[in-house]
Amino acid sequence: MTNYYKNVYINNNVVIAGPYLKDGPLKGKFDDTYNDFYDGEETFEDCEIKQIKKSIIYILRKEELKKDDVDFFISCDLTNQLMVSNVAARDIDIPYLGIYSACSSFTEELLIASLAISNNYRKVLCVTSGHSNTSERQFRNPIEYGSPKPDYSTYTVSAATSSLISSEKRGVRIESSTIGKVVDLGIKDSFDMGSAMAPAAANTLHRHLTDTGRDVDYYDLILTGDLGVYGERIFKELCKIEYHYNLNNYNDTATLVYDMNNKKVHAGGSGPSCMPTYLFKKVIPDMMKGKIKKVLLLATGALLNTTSVNQKKSIPCISHAISLEAIWFIYLHLFFQVLYV
Amino acid sequence: MTNYYKNVYINNNVVIAGPYLKDGPLKGKFDDTYNDFYDGEETFEDCEIKQIKKSIIYILRKEELKKDDVDFFISCDLTNQLMVSNVAARDIDIPYLGIYSACSSFTEELLIASLAISNNYRKVLCVTSGHSNTSERQFRNPIEYGSPKPDYSTYTVSAATSSLISSEKRGVRIESSTIGKVVDLGIKDSFDMGSAMAPAAANTLHRHLTDTGRDVDYYDLILTGDLGVYGERIFKELCKIEYHYNLNNYNDTATLVYDMNNKKVHAGGSGPSCMPTYLFKKVIPDMMKGKIKKVLLLATGALLNTTSVNQKKSIPCISHAISLEAIWFIYLHLFFQVLYV
Repeated sequence: MTNYYKNVYINNNVVIAGPYLKDGPLKGKFDDTYNDFYDGEETFEDCEIKQIKKSIIYILRKEELKKDDVDFFISCDLTNQLMVSNVAARDIDIPYLGIYSACSSFTEELLIASLAISNNYRKVLCVTSGHSNTSERQFRNPIEYGSPKPDYSTYTVSAATSSLISSEKRGVRIESSTIGKVVDLGIKDSFDMGSAMAPAAANTLHRHLTDTGRDVDYYDLILTGDLGVYGERIFKELCKIEYHYNLNNYNDTATLVYDMNNKKVHAGGSGPSCMPTYLFKKVIPDMMKGKIKKVLLLATGALLNTTSVNQKKSIPCISHAISLEAIWFIYLHLFFQVLYV
Repeated sequence: MTNYYKNVYINNNVVIAGPYLKDGPLKGKFDDTYNDFYDGEETFEDCEIKQIKKSIIYILRKEELKKDDVDFFISCDLTNQLMVSNVAARDIDIPYLGIYSACSSFTEELLIASLAISNNYRKVLCVTSGHSNTSERQFRNPIEYGSPKPDYSTYTVSAATSSLISSEKRGVRIESSTIGKVVDLGIKDSFDMGSAMAPAAANTLHRHLTDTGRDVDYYDLILTGDLGVYGERIFKELCKIEYHYNLNNYNDTATLVYDMNNKKVHAGGSGPSCMPTYLFKKVIPDMMKGKIKKVLLLATGALLNTTSVNQKKSIPCISHAISLEAIWFIYLHLFFQVLYV
């Protein structure tokens, strides 16, 4: 089922951007950047922990909040057992929920935060983190091997993002959410996650539109998370063939966060921070300026681990949907409703 | 903050019990059992996946529900990236949220489910899974090494549990929840998780009691998750010295699920399924018979991973609290309120 929310808003956000991302198309829009994969720390993991903490401290500062003003925060990253989030949570000292839905975690966080805000909680932070080198050596090969990667592989976005969710009417509105089902069409190549995830995004899009009785053109923008160059083509094809949706208002954040001339990023970005980075620094500003009104987020997650890869299992994938609305549009809508009555 | 719920109930449950657990003090109470760590499957992971699916199918059968009657399920286990839950979710085909809070996951699941039920959702399943051999080889050493473990180590409970949460008034009531903060007093021995987790449980107990204005005797039973023989002593001491709580109504599920004469289990059980197993097959039946009325669950999680152990980091720990009430007691309470008025 799709759940609707009345008074839930993304009020503010922070993105701390690392290598490649910081010099991509969103250059200059970030709250802070770091230049290399250590950022002065001893390990990649410590670097990732530092950025998570920074993103939380920055959003508290931007909103002039004390830690006690925040009821809890939700965080996700790609390290086993969410280790980097856990260590950051220890130092941040705000009540904490860890969740895992791979690169679809951001929309899972938004939906849990929306439930909480609809339920007496006042302020919740949603935090995501990714670091290309912690995930590269954990999921694939040690960095030092310098193993080549195929063209259709993606490159984890090194960034930490924080957003403040509350019932205060500013920023953009979270209108509804649809929880994803796990879909697995049998793809076993752990480099080819775009192809594996595309069917999950199509499935959730179809379930969301069926539940809400909307058609694809209802949204000004439908945004998948990190399908990449090849995955987004498969997604569009699947939508057309399987569900007869012609997507003219569709994009994928994987190819929008990086300079795609950079050979290092292959088929584009991925990781929990890929979608929120683009959303926060491009889509939400556009929504607040009135350029676009209604956006559907379909973050996509590949739910594999190294054991499942070694055991030659296929890749289960998921996509949770969140529908966002610009606030000025809500006022306009109400205005026309009044006129109509 | 502590959040209160009006109409949220644990209606029913299922426990599928594996080796050691099935022959322990709760013998004969389980919905199904399996005899060895493969249960006819090729790998430990496949065995664990099988039990998760079984527990979900069993609860649907017990409640005469179809898959479509359930809005979504929440699951957690100890495999990296929740792989066994993910694969089970693919085969079960019900919308799915993965969460991770180690052995404190069960109470995190209950609190997310309670938010959802207070928010238009009708039926949510909470699923937990553990398998001693999948976690042993992942977190510590390959089983084949036969490495000895110290006395203060715990032994992951091999079981899958499912529970049905809804607003239908039967079973036991979920009254309130307190989200845990990450606490880390510097313990680095990954075998000694009981000592590491005890301060997190004490912290959450204190925050819960402060929020609610209750004293420790308000509860007929305070139950920690998997502190084990040594951890529960530390917890009691900490409560006494740090917060001046004398716990006369306290127990820990780690030492209650196994026959503690079995040398294999060392300091007791652990894992996401440890607390729900004891809760479902001993505490809830006692609550429904009217033997105990008010129970506080403090499931405890050690948020380490192998990278953090290898990097000699200390173990961040967490404990989320859930307060349960017997339903007959609610009626009695209302009766006395009416008398009093």
